[in-house]
This record gives sequence, structure tokens and C-alpha cells, in this order.
Amino acid sequence: MLQQLFTPSVQHTLDLIGIFVFAISGALLAVRKNFDVFGIAVLAEATALGGGLFRDLIIGAVPPAAFTDLGYFVTPLLAALLVCFLHPHVERIQAGVNVFDAAGLGLFCVAGTTKAYEYGLGLHASAALGLATAVGGGVLRDVLANEVPSLLRWDRDLYAVPAVVGSVMVAVCIRYDALNPLTSTLAAATAFVLRLLAMRFHWRAPRAWNRRSTVREEEPPRQPTAKATA
Amino acid sequence: MLQQLFTPSVQHTLDLIGIFVFAISGALLAVRKNFDVFGIAVLAEATALGGGLFRDLIIGAVPPAAFTDLGYFVTPLLAALLVCFLHPHVERIQAGVNVFDAAGLGLFCVAGTTKAYEYGLGLHASAALGLATAVGGGVLRDVLANEVPSLLRWDRDLYAVPAVVGSVMVAVCIRYDALNPLTSTLAAATAFVLRLLAMRFHWRAPRAWNRRSTVREEEPPRQPTAKATA
Amino acid sequence: MLQQLFTPSVQHTLDLIGIFVFAISGALLAVRKNFDVFGIAVLAEATALGGGLFRDLIIGAVPPAAFTDLGYFVTPLLAALLVCFLHPHVERIQAGVNVFDAAGLGLFCVAGTTKAYEYGLGLHASAALGLATAVGGGVLRDVLANEVPSLLRWDRDLYAVPAVVGSVMVAVCIRYDALNPLTSTLAAATAFVLRLLAMRFHWRAPRAWNRRSTVREEEPPRQPTAKATA
Repeated sequence: MLQQLFTPSVQHTLDLIGIFVFAISGALLAVRKNFDVFGIAVLAEATALGGGLFRDLIIGAVPPAAFTDLGYFVTPLLAALLVCFLHPHVERIQAGVNVFDAAGLGLFCVAGTTKAYEYGLGLHASAALGLATAVGGGVLRDVLANEVPSLLRWDRDLYAVPAVVGSVMVAVCIRYDALNPLTSTLAAATAFVLRLLAMRFHWRAPRAWNRRSTVREEEPPRQPTAKATA
Repeated sequence: MLQQLFTPSVQHTLDLIGIFVFAISGALLAVRKNFDVFGIAVLAEATALGGGLFRDLIIGAVPPAAFTDLGYFVTPLLAALLVCFLHPHVERIQAGVNVFDAAGLGLFCVAGTTKAYEYGLGLHASAALGLATAVGGGVLRDVLANEVPSLLRWDRDLYAVPAVVGSVMVAVCIRYDALNPLTSTLAAATAFVLRLLAMRFHWRAPRAWNRRSTVREEEPPRQPTAKATA
Repeated sequence: MLQQLFTPSVQHTLDLIGIFVFAISGALLAVRKNFDVFGIAVLAEATALGGGLFRDLIIGAVPPAAFTDLGYFVTPLLAALLVCFLHPHVERIQAGVNVFDAAGLGLFCVAGTTKAYEYGLGLHASAALGLATAVGGGVLRDVLANEVPSLLRWDRDLYAVPAVVGSVMVAVCIRYDALNPLTSTLAAATAFVLRLLAMRFHWRAPRAWNRRSTVREEEPPRQPTAKATA
């Protein structure tokens, strides 16, 4: 068992911030997809809590924190309410939301990796679950909204790679017994900054070798939908 | 631990009725989507058992009842068989199916909330899981059929709100130590009647504030698919 | 508890082969959907490990083998790498891949049924989980790629039925205390051969009675997408 990285109240506040910004991204997609207020609340909850829920089911931490901590449950509802009434403004400050989302990514990959290791998983599995915690909510959001997960699309700026880097940094720190508030803040900050840079310079992952030459003719009809979610 | 609300055989019969009517709705969607008989059976199973499966994984009741009770497993197959041979008739009696589906909604939100509380979850989490039990199967059905979940769509009559009301009524009864066969029947009946009224008068939830003015131009191409599932 | 069917190293090798061929099918779909290299890796992992993950969550075997065995985690990455660089060749040898995929189907339905029974599930539930192990990864692959699961489509050759036959054979052998390396190899081989025959002779399951006459007019717009994944 690792010692507590931060005081519980600091850790809890960081979790709530991450949950809040992920919920905003879910609620905004729901507004774009024309869902009703209930659909907006559901998508906010799923986006905010989906990654942690998956991690908790895998490591056997049932009932998951999402269902035992009232704050985790109420925060996405507040985000949904905010988006319902202010969504033109929230969209206008999309850049700001993206910065918060990047912060959530950094916080969740560190918290996810640490919690998985505390429940006895190996280092590589802990890093994989840190990644899943950080990106799982977004995948669930897109599946529920019947979209191709933006995590998988080549025409999106790098999202997973910063989370991979953060998760692996935490795993390496655990391996060398060097996980402390300083190093884990460093890991979260690295993921955060990498994601900001990826958005700023539109870094993208390559596609399969020679991909361009083959099935381009099937894709154009899908682009309008893609643009709608961009 | 709550005392048994109904005699086990009454409770089991109610569960099987709920499973059967949900399975009918899954099988009908499968027929509309042109799936083969195996796909019809799978979608009937997923719709009928998905909500309870999710609840059981969350509360740690493994293996879930869906896999330990042969009746839970066989009932959806019977519903699928019925739909395969009689689907024009089942569609013609859609109104009747909707009434049964509303009954299933009422039964499942009460049973789900009660079971979650018995497994030690808090009141708000129990109510949330009651809702998830009632609507989860329908969401899984739509995700597997590659449709936008009708739970989330603004152009569907209220479905979740009746289940929320039923679940919250159960939670309030537990809180004041007043859960008994009478009050839980009342909660199920309230959800049932609210759903019937929502269908009769086409009650719908509002969308986000000012929603109409923004991205209407993206939606029309999707409407034909939407109509196909209506 | 059943005695070990094969020596652990033989069983492990068979598992890795099944994981590898399923990962190939996930990676190929990702290439066709134009995902980036990270999306290819994610879809390979999900396809290869999804069925076993679902089974392990249901039977309470947490953390699932997919997260405790490094080989299970790395094998799909190798398959993804191979597909990224060689995908025109892998597509050209699609027939060969299909044969391997059929072998994976046979191996997974036997391994899934056996493991579920070892964890105390009943015979019918074990057979159902054997089926889920064999086909679950493919369903997850298609849901993540935002496609109608090919498992459910009527215009695909039989896929689930061979797995049902293999799973039921194992369950019957357990029932009569006759499960041994010979009979379980026979069950896997039966599923394998049935799948090969289904592909060779384009066996398909029937659709619902009188299906053709009703909603054909809604389907044509979807066919181009369907063809793209064929």
C-alpha cells in the first residue's frame, strides 16, 4: 500500500475538478446531439464517471466510488445544469474547457494508476488502467451518443498519448519507490502540458502504412457527421 | 437487510413478467433492423437482462442473477421465438406491448432500488441503481443495434422520469422505514401510471435553453433513421 | 474443480494464439475505419480481450486475466504493429486470417465454458459464458467502431452457432463427467470445422418470418456502410 499522496481533502477536490470538466464535455456533446435535459444529465454522468467505474469493476473495488460518494454523483448534475442554461457561452469558451479537460486527463491518469496499484495489480496493468480511467469516460460518451469514439479517430489531436506518458511516469516512479506528491504532480503536469501542446500544434498520430491509397472512396459520406462533433 | 417484500414466488413471477416484456421490445427492434434469428435472440436477452446485469456488477452480486436463474435466461428466448413468428401481430398490438413495457419499468425500478440497498449501498446510490436497472437494458439494446439510445432523445415520450419517481419513492420509504408490500406496490404503480400518461399525452422533456437556434442544419440527414425505430 | 485439461503451457499457448488472431481482426477493421495507430492498438486489444474480460467480470474473477498476464496484453500490440505495416498483405491473406479466427472461436468457447464452470456457475450459464467469451470481443470491436455488430446481421455467415455447438458440447461432457483433453479438443474442432463450412458454403441464419415484405424501404441507405466493412 502506498502512503497517501495528498491529504484526502486535496485529493478529493482534485477528483471533483476532473469529474466536473469531463462532465462539461459530455453535456456539450449531448446539447449538440439535440438530447433533452435528461439525456444531457445522463451523458454528463457517463463521461465523468465512466472511466473510474470501469477501473473499479476491473480491480474489484465494488461498489465503485462513483456510487458511494455523493459528491461524485452530484457534480456532473451541476455541470449539466450549467451547460443547459449557458451552453452558447460554454461553447464560446471551448478553449477554456479544453484546458480544464486536459487538466482532468492529467489528474485521472495519475489517480487511476495509483489506485490500481494499491489494489494489487502489476505495474503494466496499473498503467493501462490509469490510461483507461483517463480516456474511458470519453469513449463511453461517444458510444452512447452513437459516434465513432474521438479517441480512435485519426483526425483528432493526440489525446491518449499524453495520458500514456503520465501513467507510465507514475508506474516508473512506483517501480523505483519514488512516488511522492512531487513526482505525481510532475506526472500529471507532464500529461497536462503534452495535451495542451498537442492541441496547440495539432499533433496527430500517423495512420497505418500506405493507408491513404486504399479505401478513401468510402470515407467522404461520413465527414459531415465528423465535423458536427468537432 | 430488508424483510422480503413479497413471497419469493410472487417476486419471481413479477421479475419474469418484466423480463418478458423488455425482451419483446428488444426482439421487435431486432426484427426492424433486419437481424437474423440469432441476432433477435441476443438482442432480446440483452434488453431483458442488461439493466439487472449492470446493477449486479456494480453492487458486487456475482455471478449475477441473470446467469444463475435458468428462468431469467429462458424467458427472453421465448419472447424472441414469439416475435420471430408473430411479429406483424406483435407490432399491431404495439400499444399493448407498451403497456407491458411500462409495467416492466415500474417493477424493475422498485426491485433494483431495493436490491441495491440490501447490498449496502446508500439511499441516493440505490435510487440511481434502481433507475439504471429499469432503463439500462433499453440503452444496451440501442447501443448494440447502433442507434442513438431512445432514452437520450428529445423526441421520445418521457421514459426515465417515471422510473426516477418510482426509485426515489422507494428510497424515501426506506429512509422512513416504511417500505412494505403496500408502499412498494404504490411506487411501482406510480411509475407505471406516469409512463402511461407520458405516452398518452406525449409528455417530453425540454431541451437545452436556446437549443433550437443553433445546429438544426446538421440534424435532418439523421431523421429517416430515427423514424425507422419510432 | 476440474482437473487441468492441458498442461498450463499448452493452454497458455492456445490462449495466445486465439488472442492474436482476434486482435488481427480488430486491427484490420481499425485500418478500414481510418483510425490512427493508437486507435488500431486499442481496437486490437478490445477485440482480443473483450470476451474474456466480460466473462471474468461476470464470474467474479477480478482482476481479470487480461490485466494480470503480460502476454495477454502484449500479444494484441504485436498484432496491431503487424497490421499497421503489412495491412495490404494481411488483407490479401484474409482467407488465412479467417481460418485462424475460426480456430480462435473454437478455442475460446471451450476455454470460456470450462473456466465459468470452474468458478461455480451452472451448466447452462457456463455454456452461455463460453459463447460470450468467443463472440464478445467481436461485438465490442463493432460497437467501438460504431458499426452494427456483425454477429447480429443476417447477411453474415454463421458465426455464433458454431460457438454454441462447441460450448454445449463442453457442457454436456461436464454433465456426464467426460471432459478430458480428447473431448475438449473434439468440441473445439467441431466449432472450428462448422465455422469453416459456414464460410465455405455461406450458411446463414433465417430472419423473422415474413420479414422480407415489411420494411425493406428503410434499409438501402445503410448498405454502402455495410459493404465497407464486409
